[in-house]
Amino acid sequence: MTGMHKVKLICEGKSKKVYETQYPDYYIVEYKDDAVAFNGLKRGTVKGKGAINNLISNHLMKLLEKNNIATHFVQEISPCESIVKRVDIIPIEVVVRNFAAGSLSQRLGIPEGIKLPNTVVEICYKNEELHDPLVNDFHIKALGLATDEEIKYITETALKINKILSEYLIDLNIELIDFRLEFGKDNNGKILVADEISPDTCRFWDSVTKEKLDKDRFRQDLGNIEAAYHEVLKRLTGLSKEKKEKKK
Amino acid sequence: MTGMHKVKLICEGKSKKVYETQYPDYYIVEYKDDAVAFNGLKRGTVKGKGAINNLISNHLMKLLEKNNIATHFVQEISPCESIVKRVDIIPIEVVVRNFAAGSLSQRLGIPEGIKLPNTVVEICYKNEELHDPLVNDFHIKALGLATDEEIKYITETALKINKILSEYLIDLNIELIDFRLEFGKDNNGKILVADEISPDTCRFWDSVTKEKLDKDRFRQDLGNIEAAYHEVLKRLTGLSKEKKEKKK
Repeated sequence: MTGMHKVKLICEGKSKKVYETQYPDYYIVEYKDDAVAFNGLKRGTVKGKGAINNLISNHLMKLLEKNNIATHFVQEISPCESIVKRVDIIPIEVVVRNFAAGSLSQRLGIPEGIKLPNTVVEICYKNEELHDPLVNDFHIKALGLATDEEIKYITETALKINKILSEYLIDLNIELIDFRLEFGKDNNGKILVADEISPDTCRFWDSVTKEKLDKDRFRQDLGNIEAAYHEVLKRLTGLSKEKKEKKK
Repeated sequence: MTGMHKVKLICEGKSKKVYETQYPDYYIVEYKDDAVAFNGLKRGTVKGKGAINNLISNHLMKLLEKNNIATHFVQEISPCESIVKRVDIIPIEVVVRNFAAGSLSQRLGIPEGIKLPNTVVEICYKNEELHDPLVNDFHIKALGLATDEEIKYITETALKINKILSEYLIDLNIELIDFRLEFGKDNNGKILVADEISPDTCRFWDSVTKEKLDKDRFRQDLGNIEAAYHEVLKRLTGLSKEKKEKKK
């Protein structure tokens, strides 16, 4: 991996660019400061977000690896760039929910912030034009999105990840409200956690003040977006000495 | 059941009224000519629809009973009225789909009329205000709509019903595109097929001409609604002698 460098941009998403490298099994992802919500209807820029999300996501992917969850993460190579394993993304988005919020609140009429009686896993068809619709096992089969075995593994893994992340975050006074995962298959057909795990893809609430420390600050025009994302990073990596002093 | 009569209106839906009788275990349902679509946004009247749907639904419920599927149907007592067993409706709508149409086409981008690679069963939360949203097993548990065992029984029964109806209807040149079922629990906790099975709750297409013989004629302003419903009834009950002559 010495001197791995970008060879060709192969896709640009809302918050990241993905590049081929000179090695066929590795990509370089570059996090952007762009913020996009409501299926592209709301767009903006959050200065510093790319670098913060790169650090947060890598930190959490490493935490998962430590807990025997296979991820695509390989190595951070610059503030906004990381090497990841090349995967073919499985065209589903997996949402894990501990508390009602967002589309679940809207669809099922459960007010935001209510703790759900059981963890809810949702599988959505990753299709921007269709607004990533919720699907069930019959739809997944009809659309050929994944096999029954893959969905079983992905659902079980998503629930394990939820346990790992929730327990880790609550010690940092962060309540994991919900989060979205993507999975991909490497060249051997092994399923890896891909994409990112960051305030763009998770709802993080301060467990004491209930302050939102995630993309809802952008969606809902709550302001101080970069500061909230940075607060998450500080709690994860312990970078903030002032914070620790205050807590004493 | 001698002289069973309506004692009190207990609920009025889009297409039926339900009455208590002097017997606590039985209701009388009265089919109406009202047609309502798009969550109440479109309303109209289809003369004769109530009587036709009463006959069609009873005919198909009897077919299910003959095939060992427990239903709420007891007896037809007038053109628009039938006696049914009293059940507590399970607050889910079960949709079984053989071909893409309606909300599935819209949600998943599969054009109407495409045969699905596998039968699709959808369970929706029966909640008019929320537009009966699709739910998965995790949502059903969180909302307390039904137990895992009940959902398993209901899904299996819905698939059996699909087989019975599809095979029966195709001999009458009717393709069963999709249909909606409701289930209820009787006083002993036994799950029965409830509500109705009619052109209001099924998509029936003439298998040769692909003509729509169901509520889509109302939804899509195709005209000749009553004639289409009557055509279904004629094919089911063989009432039309002209038709049989023509077929020879």
